[in-house]
Amino acid sequence: MTGVFVTLEGPEGAGKSTNLAYIAAALRAAGCEPLLTREPGGTPIAEQIRGLLLAHHEEPMDDDAELLLVFAARAQHLNRVIRPALATGRVVISDRFTDATYAYQGGGRGIDLTRIAALEHWTQGDLRPDLTLVLDVPVEVGMTRARARSALDRFESEQQSFFEAVRSSYLSRAELAPERYVIVDASADLDQVQQRLQPFIDQVLERWRG
Amino acid sequence: MTGVFVTLEGPEGAGKSTNLAYIAAALRAAGCEPLLTREPGGTPIAEQIRGLLLAHHEEPMDDDAELLLVFAARAQHLNRVIRPALATGRVVISDRFTDATYAYQGGGRGIDLTRIAALEHWTQGDLRPDLTLVLDVPVEVGMTRARARSALDRFESEQQSFFEAVRSSYLSRAELAPERYVIVDASADLDQVQQRLQPFIDQVLERWRG
Repeated sequence: MTGVFVTLEGPEGAGKSTNLAYIAAALRAAGCEPLLTREPGGTPIAEQIRGLLLAHHEEPMDDDAELLLVFAARAQHLNRVIRPALATGRVVISDRFTDATYAYQGGGRGIDLTRIAALEHWTQGDLRPDLTLVLDVPVEVGMTRARARSALDRFESEQQSFFEAVRSSYLSRAELAPERYVIVDASADLDQVQQRLQPFIDQVLERWRG
Repeated sequence: MTGVFVTLEGPEGAGKSTNLAYIAAALRAAGCEPLLTREPGGTPIAEQIRGLLLAHHEEPMDDDAELLLVFAARAQHLNRVIRPALATGRVVISDRFTDATYAYQGGGRGIDLTRIAALEHWTQGDLRPDLTLVLDVPVEVGMTRARARSALDRFESEQQSFFEAVRSSYLSRAELAPERYVIVDASADLDQVQQRLQPFIDQVLERWRG
């Protein structure tokens, strides 16, 4: 058994939590109990690293330190949670994964993509998500939704140009590998978004049933 | 100006703090105010990462996560503290640096040394210590001293075989590059140890004066 690994990507305010809950409910209705998790985080140690990454510090965080913290949390998450769950045949749905590193640390911070790729290879070996849903919204829509919600974390406090780079990284990665990525227009009505997700939920169930 | 970068290495109980204070006092007596720092740590963010690394967790820490946390803290420390201080011509003395990663994560945990070397190259570029003092004590002596001192952290709680591997990593690295490393028998009397350090303190002062 190898399980099915699904990731949801997109900026704050794209509706990842709402749609993750919707997908989970649809899977459960079909008799499949998914493991829901998130990055950075997903284990007690990885959640502590998340805390460090998202907090505002008086000291600016070095870009390389940020990248290495992201992958430290990922190694912990993968080896303690994701791999064991996939090995028992479960569907794992993660709110963000390595595509977010390409988007935020690569696109947003401008870190050399070959560094990210090397860390990805070391940490994950050949493991990649089976399906990645990219919830896409115009930057201003996402930012407005995020601001309305709660205090902004260290990433959410970045400038519009940062989020434009994040968005275009997501879109260009998705275009390069259409067999794995689905771009969902998340500025549409929730009903329409969920209708758009339906065939992919069916696909996940089909793979899960083997 | 390029400053002088000195590192002290060795297990807990080898007398790093005592000898670091001795070296600092000798430099000050000669009119040189060194920057004293430590790894993991040395900046507020890096000290938080140190806290994560040293704490006991209910969840076992993944070896790759540990290695990446060590280098995340190092990137922060290097770019925020060590490089700026060296750039103004200061003497920087760090209680542990990358040799400790080769010893603890490489020797102790058995992580592939080429991974450590790649992270070292990424994080440090060509920067290496000018002088590394390896305070060497038999494993049992160090462990007995460490136990007498305070509650053991996550590393200090390892088995004797772990510390034997750490010790032999330090010694074999030092033997490969005798121009940079000095092995000091730290089981000798403190007076003798400090007498042994004197020529290296003079060397540091000479370089510092340029």
